Amino acid sequence: MVQINENYLLLKSNYIFAEIDNRVEKYEKENPDAEIIRMGIGDVTKPLTKAVIDGFKQGVDEMGHAETFKGYGPYRGYDFLIEEIIKNDYTPLGIQLDSEEVFVSDGAKPDTGNIQEIFGMDNVVAVTDPVYPVYVESNIMAGRGGQMGEDGRYQGLVYLPCTKENDFIPELPKTPVDLIYLCYPNNPTGTVLTKEQLAKWVEYARENKSIILFDAAYEAYIQEDNIPHSIYEIEGAKEVAIEFRSFSKNAGFTGTRCAYTIVPKELMGFDTSGNSYSLNELWFRRLTTKFNGVSYPVQAAAKAIYSAEGQEEIKELVSYYMKNAAIIRESLAELGLNIYGGINSPYIWVKTPNNMDSWEFFDLLLNKAHVVGTPGVGFGPSGEGYFRITAFNTLENTKEAMDRISGLSF
Amino acid sequence: MVQINENYLLLKSNYIFAEIDNRVEKYEKENPDAEIIRMGIGDVTKPLTKAVIDGFKQGVDEMGHAETFKGYGPYRGYDFLIEEIIKNDYTPLGIQLDSEEVFVSDGAKPDTGNIQEIFGMDNVVAVTDPVYPVYVESNIMAGRGGQMGEDGRYQGLVYLPCTKENDFIPELPKTPVDLIYLCYPNNPTGTVLTKEQLAKWVEYARENKSIILFDAAYEAYIQEDNIPHSIYEIEGAKEVAIEFRSFSKNAGFTGTRCAYTIVPKELMGFDTSGNSYSLNELWFRRLTTKFNGVSYPVQAAAKAIYSAEGQEEIKELVSYYMKNAAIIRESLAELGLNIYGGINSPYIWVKTPNNMDSWEFFDLLLNKAHVVGTPGVGFGPSGEGYFRITAFNTLENTKEAMDRISGLSF
Repeated sequence: MVQINENYLLLKSNYIFAEIDNRVEKYEKENPDAEIIRMGIGDVTKPLTKAVIDGFKQGVDEMGHAETFKGYGPYRGYDFLIEEIIKNDYTPLGIQLDSEEVFVSDGAKPDTGNIQEIFGMDNVVAVTDPVYPVYVESNIMAGRGGQMGEDGRYQGLVYLPCTKENDFIPELPKTPVDLIYLCYPNNPTGTVLTKEQLAKWVEYARENKSIILFDAAYEAYIQEDNIPHSIYEIEGAKEVAIEFRSFSKNAGFTGTRCAYTIVPKELMGFDTSGNSYSLNELWFRRLTTKFNGVSYPVQAAAKAIYSAEGQEEIKELVSYYMKNAAIIRESLAELGLNIYGGINSPYIWVKTPNNMDSWEFFDLLLNKAHVVGTPGVGFGPSGEGYFRITAFNTLENTKEAMDRISGLSF
Repeated sequence: MVQINENYLLLKSNYIFAEIDNRVEKYEKENPDAEIIRMGIGDVTKPLTKAVIDGFKQGVDEMGHAETFKGYGPYRGYDFLIEEIIKNDYTPLGIQLDSEEVFVSDGAKPDTGNIQEIFGMDNVVAVTDPVYPVYVESNIMAGRGGQMGEDGRYQGLVYLPCTKENDFIPELPKTPVDLIYLCYPNNPTGTVLTKEQLAKWVEYARENKSIILFDAAYEAYIQEDNIPHSIYEIEGAKEVAIEFRSFSKNAGFTGTRCAYTIVPKELMGFDTSGNSYSLNELWFRRLTTKFNGVSYPVQAAAKAIYSAEGQEEIKELVSYYMKNAAIIRESLAELGLNIYGGINSPYIWVKTPNNMDSWEFFDLLLNKAHVVGTPGVGFGPSGEGYFRITAFNTLENTKEAMDRISGLSF
């Protein structure tokens, strides 16, 4: 008799975005004339840029001719893209990478979800709280999380609270942890770590032989100095960190699907006898069995991001969304709300007024302003009393949403 | 201290295709003038067809305009593609499918590799021998396979030998199994099962509450009647089978990346208390955490396969490769070799002459004819003494390779 993976039964059934959809759908049904503005999911709205479209089409054209047709590609991705990644995203930061340390994939979500597979079941996993749900759920599915307690925390995971009380800077864990998920600029809070703050984590990982899984999907939104764009800007990080990057948020690839992950060759994991093994080789071994590379024309499109024209275009994309972020920050601040993030990231993290809980505030904005955001509690128990608004809508919609919210009284 | 997934250490280190590359590279170095013809890896050589290129480009164009731009798509894939799949690939076979039973993905390899995640660790897994390595390796990595014995078999798996002695028709297992991987038309042997033969497996699975993981990636190559194109042609199969299909081999998508998997809503798995759960919902749950859909323009390209023009084009592609298969069959038969497959599949499975082992025959063809195939033993111990040749090269190269081999004496 076939048995299911019972770990799936430990997952909370109401995935946050499904519950949001339910409430919005219900409201729309009852109020068919309401023009709802969605600032919940972190999805981009601006089209792919000209350079990207041109590169994409050229890639498609090549697939139509026998001389330039591409079958199975290299597991790690094409060298033409990997070279641009290293040259543009790492060399200027003073970081040296070997082409075999870069793995092109179809998304940072699959990669951050799959990376735990190369690690043993007994590792202790630490996550910030609130947190991007993929880190937690992929470990629950694998069996590392245990039951969810009444406090909304899976008992097998170590939670690192990030709230206004600690300026959203997680404290080092009090008990040893082996795998540490860090996402900066942070999803969902929009906050960042300085080099000094991140260096403490690298030091911790080096001392404890832990691995940091560093999600830098929002790196392009960093505006201020002294905020690391890559964890490898921190000395010694190549021995303790895997970094995830994506073209989704800088170049609008959420529906095009391309990302990359850096697994340095210095990175080692251990067996129970203490022998060390290359994590780069383990990750490559996983890919050879479970992956067959990213669509060739998509990789050609991604390469075009690195042309002079492409680099200009994505700067414009980012500043378009960051202008929205500034408008959101200003409008909400004028209302007297406490807001965080939105300076080096497209997410604004709002403290709900009058001790409302996250879902109360969600319902208020939906009912009174027809604006949809994301209840902070959906990202973890320490997100209760907070609310996430994204800057990814159009300028017009962002202004309209803020006008409506400004008319409310709390 | 971070621990690795020690199951990875159980994997044989020399992946067959890597070993082939090593030997070919060495030979090329020593014989720089040899013009080597590759008939090893199952990769296509003909370019994408016109209808597909047009659909692909139209999809790219839509991504360049705000009104038609697509961000995150539906997890299961776009309805425009799912509807065509059902209408063209299943309705004509008399099979009714709900749109929520179709899951569009970036490949049959990732899907057949990932599907085991939704099942518990204690299921007994059966594979045919020889076998597509992904089924075995993905279960070893998860911890279901145990050590490899001296017989070349992982001790935790049940092997179902397929050799000329049983006409490549696997016998039902003598001990109960829970998960059964079947691939028909078969990779690597190129052989098929009739409806009656497949029906025995469906009956077995129904009686034992097992699940059949049916890989139909080569379905388009079926030429004869009474060979099922889908396992759901067998009555009752929707309660016991998941089916994997791909655009790689019929439409040349190996480098474009699109496939789909059918998980019927009737399919149930059980927890240790015997409660039943929908496998469709479990697979969907996995996708929401670890996947973000297939690139929109790639799905638009896949849709174009189903246009009248597209259908004509892929028929031509398939018959091009099947003409190669016929040439290979005829040439090798004239030499007095025993050959199998190649009638309903692009693979020809050759019994090596004079009791040569698979690698001896590999070296002979490489050294004397400069032709590269795949040693059968690389697909499992029952593949020893066999050799796989693919029909995916060009007509010219196929003829040239057969001319060279015909000059050999065994």
